[in-house]
Amino acid sequence: MSTAQLRSESRGQYEAKAYAAAGAKSPLAPISITRRDPGEHDVQIEILFCGICHSDLHQVRSEWSAMPTVYPCVPGHEIVGRVSKVGSAVTRFKPGDIAAVGCLVDSDGNCPECQAGLEQFCQHMTFTYNSPDVHLGGVTYGGYSDSIVVKEHFVLRVPSNLNLAGTAPLLCAGITTYSPMRHWRVTKGKKVGVVGLGGLGHMAVKFAHALGAHVVVFTTSPNKKEDALRLGADDVVISKDADQMSNHLGSFDFIIDSVSAEHDINTYIQLLRPDGNLTLVGAPDKPYAVSALGLLFKRRSLSGSLIGGIAETQEMLDFCGKHNITADVEIIPIQKVNEAYERLSRADVKYRFSIDMASLKSQ
Amino acid sequence: MSTAQLRSESRGQYEAKAYAAAGAKSPLAPISITRRDPGEHDVQIEILFCGICHSDLHQVRSEWSAMPTVYPCVPGHEIVGRVSKVGSAVTRFKPGDIAAVGCLVDSDGNCPECQAGLEQFCQHMTFTYNSPDVHLGGVTYGGYSDSIVVKEHFVLRVPSNLNLAGTAPLLCAGITTYSPMRHWRVTKGKKVGVVGLGGLGHMAVKFAHALGAHVVVFTTSPNKKEDALRLGADDVVISKDADQMSNHLGSFDFIIDSVSAEHDINTYIQLLRPDGNLTLVGAPDKPYAVSALGLLFKRRSLSGSLIGGIAETQEMLDFCGKHNITADVEIIPIQKVNEAYERLSRADVKYRFSIDMASLKSQ
Repeated sequence: MSTAQLRSESRGQYEAKAYAAAGAKSPLAPISITRRDPGEHDVQIEILFCGICHSDLHQVRSEWSAMPTVYPCVPGHEIVGRVSKVGSAVTRFKPGDIAAVGCLVDSDGNCPECQAGLEQFCQHMTFTYNSPDVHLGGVTYGGYSDSIVVKEHFVLRVPSNLNLAGTAPLLCAGITTYSPMRHWRVTKGKKVGVVGLGGLGHMAVKFAHALGAHVVVFTTSPNKKEDALRLGADDVVISKDADQMSNHLGSFDFIIDSVSAEHDINTYIQLLRPDGNLTLVGAPDKPYAVSALGLLFKRRSLSGSLIGGIAETQEMLDFCGKHNITADVEIIPIQKVNEAYERLSRADVKYRFSIDMASLKSQ
Repeated sequence: MSTAQLRSESRGQYEAKAYAAAGAKSPLAPISITRRDPGEHDVQIEILFCGICHSDLHQVRSEWSAMPTVYPCVPGHEIVGRVSKVGSAVTRFKPGDIAAVGCLVDSDGNCPECQAGLEQFCQHMTFTYNSPDVHLGGVTYGGYSDSIVVKEHFVLRVPSNLNLAGTAPLLCAGITTYSPMRHWRVTKGKKVGVVGLGGLGHMAVKFAHALGAHVVVFTTSPNKKEDALRLGADDVVISKDADQMSNHLGSFDFIIDSVSAEHDINTYIQLLRPDGNLTLVGAPDKPYAVSALGLLFKRRSLSGSLIGGIAETQEMLDFCGKHNITADVEIIPIQKVNEAYERLSRADVKYRFSIDMASLKSQ
């Protein structure tokens, strides 16, 4: 008898509807998956919307050598839904509540990172999909599904004023851009650059604007200017224009770079003022070429950031509630997910797809 | 009449002995240079010792395209001496005091950087040598000389217990390593790595040890182990040994990298714990290849640092006085400076040359 079977016998389980890829070259297709019945610390959520993140596409196609994909793969880590059942020890949620789940569904809880609220850096954290599932064996299954069961600590509250389809992408695109801005102290009066205006970039613009910063968007596409201004940018720089770029030399407190395609980051490092920081949230395959002098001469720093901890994700959602911030989304039924992937790979979406999971019921 | 002549007429000047290079391929040789008589805010210093910095060698050979060398070039920015004369407005020094001068002799004093005590990042700062000299025209001349005249703000006090030959290198090698450790909060209990054990590295070990950190030296040379431990290291890792390196994965709060030769910094980034920082103080010609994932996964940062401000340089000297820290030096007469350059380019010195300027009197 396998470990997975032993585990599944120790507790009840049920069948859930989902969409999964059977292999790196397979389209997503309907599947029936096993979920655990909620344990005493668990929350069961009926999923209403799930955002499509660029990571979903990479993982489904097994494009990350460091994190090979286990098939079938049910992606989705931008989850919003309604609580349908809670375990006996759950205190913060009751059936009927609107709740959300992001990229993490578990961590060890005891290590220095967990104690510091940085569950995303816990050595034993569990991603929402494609991580070993300690309850049922196999791997975790994500939000392209009609329901999910998650430990209460990893379930977020959603402010009641927020549009739910636009809230889903906050759980990854939102926290990924909010967290480094808080860490590097973006506040009123700071000059903030946003490189790239896609799913992450458009959230970065909204957050930097709401935090009171002077926001400059860098884009290679002149036709994105109007939209950037609408989203909250104060200025737009066409990054291919050296004159426009040099007008901003040494002037930025913080720049967030959301571009995964290969590009020269030294140009952006030169735009930072003393002690300025450039944070990468995109991860190209190739390493960046970084000139040491650009960092030395103004004590600038280059860093990376990966989603955020659970407490900070809740803080971000509350901030969104206060400022009425959601992602700009195009709502699709799950049946159009493969088409959406094709469009996403061409960056043809403003700015995030949000899957209406009601469509899965009629599957 | 040239601007330089006009300027020199407005105030007195005098002839000083020095060593200069006449061109990129010329050896250093005796020369007579013009110094200004001290103005009301100036301090005139009889130079007792001047350290030889690797920058001296680069600048003399005009190896930095961004900062072409003007000849004759009198290098030297690790200066310790005795005050011989002060201007009428000088309050902190009197003749007979021991004083020091580092890499900077002027800045605008009004910009945000100067106001923040970061004169090294002032757009209008004047380097001790090879910067435009607003008083006499031409360029500034450094410490390979029997005297120098410097604005009081840029003159440092030297604690009376310090050995003067070993104090000279504190003015560049010292502050260059002390400043980033203070900025990135190296304190008791932190784990600090020092990459490379040369002029900068050996100072970094002494400071990190005195600050109470657990200090690990990374070196390619097994024969440096004993010396690293003597200087204050708690552990020495041979960086070519992958097993030794992997024992330290994800464990460092701060790593200072003083190596100018080409090397893989991703290996060191992987050794940082969450929020850990790697600061570069060496500047190789070629850009570094930096993997974004190494930065993303623990919110690590990569930064640079360049000497330090004047107030922090004084703080560093006072710290050295309190902990009786000086550089390990080999004292040479100025007549051996060309030989010392040859040895320095082979890294054949433990750990800094300090020129005894008394030797220049007998020239």
